[in-house]
Amino acid sequence: MEVIVPFSTDRPKSRLSDALSPEERREFARAMLDDVLDAVVAAGGDPRILATDAVDLDHPVTVDDRPLTTAVNAALGARLGTGGEDGAGIDGSLEPVAVVMADLALATPAALRRLFEAGRDADVAVAPGRGGGTNAFVATHPEFRVDYHGASYLDHREIAAEIGADFAAVDSHRLGTDVDEPADLAEVLIHGEGRAATWLRGAGFALDASEGRVAVTRE
Amino acid sequence: MEVIVPFSTDRPKSRLSDALSPEERREFARAMLDDVLDAVVAAGGDPRILATDAVDLDHPVTVDDRPLTTAVNAALGARLGTGGEDGAGIDGSLEPVAVVMADLALATPAALRRLFEAGRDADVAVAPGRGGGTNAFVATHPEFRVDYHGASYLDHREIAAEIGADFAAVDSHRLGTDVDEPADLAEVLIHGEGRAATWLRGAGFALDASEGRVAVTRE
Repeated sequence: MEVIVPFSTDRPKSRLSDALSPEERREFARAMLDDVLDAVVAAGGDPRILATDAVDLDHPVTVDDRPLTTAVNAALGARLGTGGEDGAGIDGSLEPVAVVMADLALATPAALRRLFEAGRDADVAVAPGRGGGTNAFVATHPEFRVDYHGASYLDHREIAAEIGADFAAVDSHRLGTDVDEPADLAEVLIHGEGRAATWLRGAGFALDASEGRVAVTRE
Repeated sequence: MEVIVPFSTDRPKSRLSDALSPEERREFARAMLDDVLDAVVAAGGDPRILATDAVDLDHPVTVDDRPLTTAVNAALGARLGTGGEDGAGIDGSLEPVAVVMADLALATPAALRRLFEAGRDADVAVAPGRGGGTNAFVATHPEFRVDYHGASYLDHREIAAEIGADFAAVDSHRLGTDVDEPADLAEVLIHGEGRAATWLRGAGFALDASEGRVAVTRE
């Protein structure tokens, strides 16, 4: 399955600016991207990076500096078309296309396989993020398009209903955890097994279980 | 499967005190408990409430006013024993016992069935909560005991390793979302389908997607 991974090279992870310097945010964002790409490949996916600027990777990179929604919709249009022959298989069916965010540092091959399977059964399968975002999805319906503004999970469910597409939600804490805010760093330290968790530990971050939910501290 | 649902009747949900009055917190906690019990029954579970004081319910209630860890360990000890004949089946194997928190307002029968299945395959299966808690688990190993302090998910994984129990993590956003803090209310409005979501809407709560992650506002 083709898996588009959007990645912003321009001021990545600005909501982590209280916890990390701009250079650190760049390094950490790259570590998360590398973890996501490894998990996609291990789950049998074929990753294509959709980046806002050139980035050095061993996978195909498409540069598109337009806003995320516009760039992803252009990629979906090129692949799913309007049901015409371009993207259609021999029997006229479209190949599913996945879009997986680059900051899902907890993504594992098992979690992504569940997403891919849901996307083979439904026309649109979405893994919602905490706060109602759309962290990952698979679509085969030719008319499905995204709108990442606001509570996009609810919007995408509505868009699927409007175009008559079967919709499935994928219930995953790992795919639901996009790493945007300082509190999310605790999730990486608790569950992460890759470069992002190693990077955080190397930068002096540790878990702090002294009150309520576990938070992070930095040496 | 027997499913123990701990429930605090005493000052429930104190971390929601900025958002809800004491009486509202009691009503909301009860709505969540009823949602959890419905989901447990629909998933084929047999719920037993472990409450800090008497509570009027159509399911069996055991009152134990000791701290959560002590009360749950007493319940586990009574059921799993030490591998002796009390809890053992004809072939000597123990029946699995589940413990599911009462504030998992997003729990669905499908999510709980995944937990129960994982608990049939592994000696200890845990659904981690955001922030490293243990929101739900199934145990069959006679020596497994809990310690809910701090990052209990990591502690329980370690306890399982120490006693030689197979351990499985259950990757679920729904089971991972315990409703403790105001930000969690947004998850209930986005994903909840039961009494807790209805109660919040009736109390004037609505989603606010005006910036970053979706939050809640109150009329």
